[in-house]
Amino acid sequence: MATSIHPTAIIEDGADLGDGVQIGEFSIVRASATIGTDSVIGSHCEVGYGSAAFTERLTIGPNATIRSHSIVYSASSIGERFETGHRAIVREHSTIGRNVRIGSLADIEGTCEIGDYVRIHSGVFVPAETVIGDYVWLFPYVVITNDPYPPSDRLEGVTIESYASVGARSVLLPGVTVGADSLVAAGAVVSRDVAPGTVVAGVPAKELADVSTVQLNDGAGPAYPWRRQYRRGYSVEAIEAWQREFPEG
Amino acid sequence: MATSIHPTAIIEDGADLGDGVQIGEFSIVRASATIGTDSVIGSHCEVGYGSAAFTERLTIGPNATIRSHSIVYSASSIGERFETGHRAIVREHSTIGRNVRIGSLADIEGTCEIGDYVRIHSGVFVPAETVIGDYVWLFPYVVITNDPYPPSDRLEGVTIESYASVGARSVLLPGVTVGADSLVAAGAVVSRDVAPGTVVAGVPAKELADVSTVQLNDGAGPAYPWRRQYRRGYSVEAIEAWQREFPEG
Amino acid sequence: MATSIHPTAIIEDGADLGDGVQIGEFSIVRASATIGTDSVIGSHCEVGYGSAAFTERLTIGPNATIRSHSIVYSASSIGERFETGHRAIVREHSTIGRNVRIGSLADIEGTCEIGDYVRIHSGVFVPAETVIGDYVWLFPYVVITNDPYPPSDRLEGVTIESYASVGARSVLLPGVTVGADSLVAAGAVVSRDVAPGTVVAGVPAKELADVSTVQLNDGAGPAYPWRRQYRRGYSVEAIEAWQREFPEG
Repeated sequence: MATSIHPTAIIEDGADLGDGVQIGEFSIVRASATIGTDSVIGSHCEVGYGSAAFTERLTIGPNATIRSHSIVYSASSIGERFETGHRAIVREHSTIGRNVRIGSLADIEGTCEIGDYVRIHSGVFVPAETVIGDYVWLFPYVVITNDPYPPSDRLEGVTIESYASVGARSVLLPGVTVGADSLVAAGAVVSRDVAPGTVVAGVPAKELADVSTVQLNDGAGPAYPWRRQYRRGYSVEAIEAWQREFPEG
Repeated sequence: MATSIHPTAIIEDGADLGDGVQIGEFSIVRASATIGTDSVIGSHCEVGYGSAAFTERLTIGPNATIRSHSIVYSASSIGERFETGHRAIVREHSTIGRNVRIGSLADIEGTCEIGDYVRIHSGVFVPAETVIGDYVWLFPYVVITNDPYPPSDRLEGVTIESYASVGARSVLLPGVTVGADSLVAAGAVVSRDVAPGTVVAGVPAKELADVSTVQLNDGAGPAYPWRRQYRRGYSVEAIEAWQREFPEG
Repeated sequence: MATSIHPTAIIEDGADLGDGVQIGEFSIVRASATIGTDSVIGSHCEVGYGSAAFTERLTIGPNATIRSHSIVYSASSIGERFETGHRAIVREHSTIGRNVRIGSLADIEGTCEIGDYVRIHSGVFVPAETVIGDYVWLFPYVVITNDPYPPSDRLEGVTIESYASVGARSVLLPGVTVGADSLVAAGAVVSRDVAPGTVVAGVPAKELADVSTVQLNDGAGPAYPWRRQYRRGYSVEAIEAWQREFPEG
């Protein structure tokens, strides 16, 4: 598609737009931004915020969809097919993998690592020092923390391992590791590490069971690890691997 | 009042503005939007988002007040006297009744039904498949969910019956019904149906009492059903009916 | 620095900008706003919202930094060196002291009092009638309430005394007082007053200990009152006073 910059958009000198990029009304692309081919940026966005304050550029891979009112800082690196809802924030010094989606009002505070195919829903708060693996799900209004003695300078980031699913409005306390394939129930307050493949719930969160014991209510078998039963939007390679891993799934 | 479109606003061909509509600075009205007479849209809004992606129009009834930075999608239907705070989002395929107010940062994710005179406060999250009756209150940062096996494709929407009041920062788990006239205390996690006219609280929420046992602290009698003691902003017909229902109120 | 108004910004007649003020792209300064010298306002902001509805002006002290997409109403008074993240909201009839910082998406609903050197993080909700002392910390997504019988007209504001620290995603119920030097753990629901210098946690929050019993994990001594171990960003006078108060700190 041809590049399309709305006449009201402001593209600063130094911004590097790939072929086919579309920029919406009243949006600003700052000097430090490099935006991959065929990316679409909605209205009222600000991409490359802080160009003067950071020495590194912002790089966004091809085929991004950044919805209206979003803000992306300089000095972060984002892989291909990045997608945001409205009013997302991504701050500086973050590394975000391929095919990541973040919801409306999500706030990625910077200095964190996010893997591939991560899904972050509306209103999630990801502070500095958070490390998130691949294929992780964070449901609406999850709040992650990083300061064990608020306020202090002793930040301890949360680690969320691949395929973990963190339920809506739960909170993860500083330094905890949420293990691979685990499930944190909605509304939990997680104060200790969650073992891989376990379900936790409550305030404070307690281990309830192995995730494989959670059965779909129509007799279709175990619901977890979720890749047994949910495969929409993933790559052919991933889906084929999951079919081999769970041939009955 | 005369129609007033700020010179910086963008009104796409196809947009249908009633008499007396006011559109603020840097706002966009997309092709699919039909906006009722005497409605006021603040600055930095985007109304009719997704005009190309949806076949249905957005219709907003007369006398709407949509405050600045709000986003309303195509393919939803909204009744008269709709009012939003700042940065509200209303997505596609939703039906919203008359005299509904939604607060700043509220996120109505679409494909849901909201009755008349509903009050949704700041930061509330209403996902797809939610059904809300009339005269319901959702207080700040309530999070409603819809996926019993996150992530899955087996969505089960929450139902909130008329006159229910859901306290701040509570979470409603997938598929629950919050009964008419009930009260969910602030901070609760509601995992089971709430019987009509009961108070629930805690994590997970437990039934505490009949709502009529909650007494106002100045000896003025029972606080619930709330229409006994709170009638500001409602129609004369509703207030007269409530006076007949609670003659001592 | 020279005053700098971006050509796309809109400055209404009556707005009073001090020397050296900078206003970003697509921002609006309404007639009622008085903005102190050397303040910086980012893009897509609206400052002085509601100029026609309120008789009082908005006054913002010198050296403010108001980041993009923020909204500040008329009829509030804000001290020097005010700083906001993105998309902050400050409504009418609020009094905010010196050197206050509020995070992205924070929503100060108006008719409240906030002291000096208060730190309010992302997504915090502060409703009407809240009173906050000096040097208070509110961590991300804290929700404060004010209505003991929602909905009612009997508002009872929360009071947070100086040096209190309120952990992420906790909720403070109407009318409670959070005492000086106290610590509310993340995820708590505070339904009763918190005594000065105590730690509370849980749903509902219970008193766990005196704050002085919380030890830093590296043997560096007590973590609280936090001014023993965290002093970044405060005035020389405050730091010297804290050094005298905690000479071993």
